[in-house]
Formats: sequence, structure tokens, C-alpha cells
Amino acid sequence: MSVSPARLAGRRCVVLGASGFIGKNLCDGLQTLGARAIGMSRSSQQLAASVEWHCAPLEADVLENLLQRDDIVFHLASSTTPGSPVTPDIDITTNVTPAVRLFEACSRKRVARVIFLSSGGTVYGPNVQLPTPEDAPTNPISWYGVQKLMIEKYLAVYHRLHALDFIALRVANPFGPHQVKTQQGLVASVIRHALTDTPVPIFGDGLVTRDYIYVADVVEAILHAAVIDESEAPRIYNVGTGVGRSVLDVIDTVQAVHGRPLRVTRLPSRAIDVPASILDISRARKHLGWSPRTDWEQAIRFNYAWAQGQTPKLARSP
Amino acid sequence: MSVSPARLAGRRCVVLGASGFIGKNLCDGLQTLGARAIGMSRSSQQLAASVEWHCAPLEADVLENLLQRDDIVFHLASSTTPGSPVTPDIDITTNVTPAVRLFEACSRKRVARVIFLSSGGTVYGPNVQLPTPEDAPTNPISWYGVQKLMIEKYLAVYHRLHALDFIALRVANPFGPHQVKTQQGLVASVIRHALTDTPVPIFGDGLVTRDYIYVADVVEAILHAAVIDESEAPRIYNVGTGVGRSVLDVIDTVQAVHGRPLRVTRLPSRAIDVPASILDISRARKHLGWSPRTDWEQAIRFNYAWAQGQTPKLARSP
Repeated sequence: MSVSPARLAGRRCVVLGASGFIGKNLCDGLQTLGARAIGMSRSSQQLAASVEWHCAPLEADVLENLLQRDDIVFHLASSTTPGSPVTPDIDITTNVTPAVRLFEACSRKRVARVIFLSSGGTVYGPNVQLPTPEDAPTNPISWYGVQKLMIEKYLAVYHRLHALDFIALRVANPFGPHQVKTQQGLVASVIRHALTDTPVPIFGDGLVTRDYIYVADVVEAILHAAVIDESEAPRIYNVGTGVGRSVLDVIDTVQAVHGRPLRVTRLPSRAIDVPASILDISRARKHLGWSPRTDWEQAIRFNYAWAQGQTPKLARSP
Repeated sequence: MSVSPARLAGRRCVVLGASGFIGKNLCDGLQTLGARAIGMSRSSQQLAASVEWHCAPLEADVLENLLQRDDIVFHLASSTTPGSPVTPDIDITTNVTPAVRLFEACSRKRVARVIFLSSGGTVYGPNVQLPTPEDAPTNPISWYGVQKLMIEKYLAVYHRLHALDFIALRVANPFGPHQVKTQQGLVASVIRHALTDTPVPIFGDGLVTRDYIYVADVVEAILHAAVIDESEAPRIYNVGTGVGRSVLDVIDTVQAVHGRPLRVTRLPSRAIDVPASILDISRARKHLGWSPRTDWEQAIRFNYAWAQGQTPKLARSP
């Protein structure tokens, strides 16, 4: 049976990558539940005053001081995005090695659970069944996808050899407030270009299809993953909507909200992009007791308003 | 159609890890075919005089000088064995990072093909169909298995993004001459203990089952993988016999050759060992035109004699 995230009240929750897009939203969610949120990030950017804050890299001595027995640890930190122009040795040094260092420290400190944010859009690769279930083959075509997959595999060995409890969430394409970096998220990019009246760069024919999920739904999935207590539950979950939308669909929706036509600049398609990524979320519905509950158009409308500095009320399903 | 390894005559073949167990046997095989074998190893141990030899680590400038366009590169180097007591960050630094550095150099130099020796005994993990086909799920339970899988995944992305041609061979449990390190291979260990009249250490109940393959058969699979030219052929192959033998089976066979009972020392079973690993080799039979052709008992008899300093003739199937 699924358990309410309300049980996180008072709980020590360590968020790595707390100043990032999902990190900020998760810290907000933890505070709303009354959890003791402890944010860690390489960036010195501050969160809300009520989040305890550590600005430090993922290094052994830092972790040794920060982590405590029975913490819930949310590993959201990543040095790269799927499109980052890095060579894999940099990716390994800045993502994989810090992750295993973290898991080593988590095992030693006997934390309660690690929640790792993996990538539903890149770990499977092309030529898989759509919507894609978690047990589909995993053949990434980007460094980002390999890196995320390998961190999952390391977690599974830490579980096996050191009894480290973990859940890996393969998140589809999240969008929403605080997604502000360039190269991170089509929705944010389209809205930014709409508001600055500049052409939207699109790769290829615009038919590349993704499973866009509103960040509040992602945060709820993370919170549910933090509290499930069935020992027989799977360790890996897709987190998406099960609905695919093309680049052109996204542009259409933003355009409707914007009220004026958007211009586009076409760029060559990228070898790292699979043609379509749509996740089968039956497992998360069943075992996490979670479902996405944000309407696509309402979410785009809200996000557009947020990007203009407004915060209207966003209605979501109960 | 399969192609004969004889076409390697005169071909520049770079063997990384040339002073290791399989590396030495491969260099012998390449020389027999008249290939131009160039061995590279961190170890200063010499090979046969006719192998051109570089003693150096896998570093960018070394590779830049060593590799040439159209080389065939055999990547057999590994700093660890499945039972190595290392933390994964060491494994990453000494195995994964050097491998991607190698593939980066191979892509830049436009070598003809990289043959990577992966691990059939560890990449799949437990709870898979036996014999195990290549498209089975890959859920390793050892650092070694994760590391080998990760290198395969990186190779696939180098293929996708940089057109690097590659074959990964998931080799089962090889045994034979030159397997001399401790912690590397049960057959060698049992023979060594027989010859020194010391107790054979065995982990658990002795029923752990593996697919033992004679090294000459492994070398032939590698040589076939070097020459196949079907562009539609799969990139990943199991290399084993399809036959499973327990630890106790191995001890029985060595004992029969030895002619006297062997003593054993029982140690606790290891969390990193899957209960059984037996590979389905249909794909290699079909696409590589290769089959193992060494009789188990004859191979053990030969290996036992080799360990005593003898080299009798080993009959193998045509």
C-alpha cells in the first residue's frame, strides 16, 4: 500500500543539487510538509531562508560531516545536461565518481534511503517499445544517458553489498518554475524566446517527441518514493505522463498562451536525440501510489506567467 | 558469411593488456597468423621477441603516438578482477576512464575496429535465463560487472557519435596457460594447489556454476571478431561453451588428472558471485562463424602439464 509523504514531517532530508531546477522545487515541497530540508549545492545561490544550506562539492569529508544515520538523501546533482558538449571523461569525473563517493558515505553512515534522479528520456535509447516500461533494454546514445544508467547500476551494487536502500526515478522531460538554465528544457526555452521575441531554435524537423511532465508532479513522485516501505517494491520507476508531444506541439501550446505567432530557427538534428521518448508509468502508479495530476495547458499557462514574474494559482487534480 | 582470421596476415594489430593472461595467448595467435602484433602493457614483462612492445599506461599522448589509422585494437587491459577488493572509484579511475580515453584516441585516429573484452560472467547478474543470451537484462552485482557494462555502453555511444567500429565479447570463465595471477581463475587455482599440495580455498558450498572456456577458444573468437565484415552483424557476443560446471566439478576433474585426492578449505560464499553463469553462444556461432573446439578434460590435462613446465600436444576439434 502507498504511504503518504506527510510522514516526512520532522524528518531530516538532505537534497544534493538543491539550487537546481528540480532541487528548488523539491526543497519547497519538503518545507511544505514540515520536513527538515538540508540543501547542498556547488552553487552559492541561496534558497528560502528556512532551508539549511551547505555550499560545497560532493567530497568525502564534506559528506562525512553532513550525513547522519537515517537521513533521506535526494541525489539530484548533475554537472551536465543531455546536450552538454562534454567528453565522457569529464562526465565520469564530475558525475559518476561523485555519485559513488556519495553512496559510499551513505552506506557508511547508514542513511535510510537514497533517491536518485535518473533520466527516463535518455537511458533507454532508440528502438524501444512506446510507452516504454522500466524493464525495456537500456541502450543510451548519449554520454548523459550512459552516466545516469551507470549510477543506477552502482546503486544496485551498493544495495547488494552494503544494504543501501535506494529508489531510482527515471524522470521524463520535466518543466516548470526555476527551469532557467539555457540547454535545459524545451518548454522553458520556448517561453523565454516568446517573451524576448526571438526565434526558437529547434533541432531537426520538430517532430522529436518527448514526455513532458510538470515539476510539481515530479516532486510528488520523489516524495512518494521517499516514504514507500514495501520491501518487495521495485527500485526503479519511470516518472512521466505517458503522453508524447512533439517540439511543434510544445510551440503550438506556448503560442496559444502567448497570443502571437512564434518564429523558429531550424538547426540540424542531433545524433544524441532519440526520435521519441514516452514513458509507461504503470509501475509508479501501482507501487508509489502516485499519478501526475497537472493539466498540460494549465501548466504551460502557469509557467509562462511565472517567467513574467507572476505567480497565479495553478489548479491541479485532487 | 564468416571470414577467416587468416586475413589478419600483415595487419597492424595493437593489443592493450598484452602481458596478461589472454593478452599473451592472443599475441601468440596473432603471430601465428603473420599479423604485426604490437603489445602494450603497464607491466614491463616481456613477450616473445617478435612482438613489438610498448610499456606504458593508457594515456592520451602515448595512444596518440601508438595508434594508426586502420589499426585493429584489442582492448584486454584491466586493473581488476571480479574479486578485487577495490572501491568503485578506483575501478572507475583505473578502468573506465582509461577506456574512454582509448576510444577517444581510436575515434580520432580512425582505427578500423576496437575489440573489447567484456565479462560474460558478471554483466548479467543473477536471475537470468540459463544459458543466457546477449539480450538478457544486465544487472551486475559486482563493481567489476558494472565497469565492464559501462565500457560497453560507452563504446556504443562512440559508435553512434563518432562512427567507431567495435565488437564487445562477453567472455565467460577462461582458463589455460599464462593464467598465473592469484584471484584470477578457479582452474588455475585448483591446479596450483594440487601441485603445491595445499588445500584449495572454495567459497560457499562449491555448487556455484560457471561456463569455463579454454583460452585458445577465446583467442579464436577474438580473431574472428576482428575480421567479420557484415555491417548488419550484432556488436555484442557471448564467448563461452554453453556448458555449466560447478566448483566441485572442476576439483573432480583436476583430481582425476592429479591422481590423488585434493583437500579443500571452505570459505564463506561471496555476495558478488551469481549462483550460476552459463552463456548462450548461438549468436557467436551464427555471426562469427566460431565455435569452441577444445575438450574439457583434455584442456585440464594440458593446463596441468603446462603448470608443471611441460607443453604436450593438445588435440582440438577441427
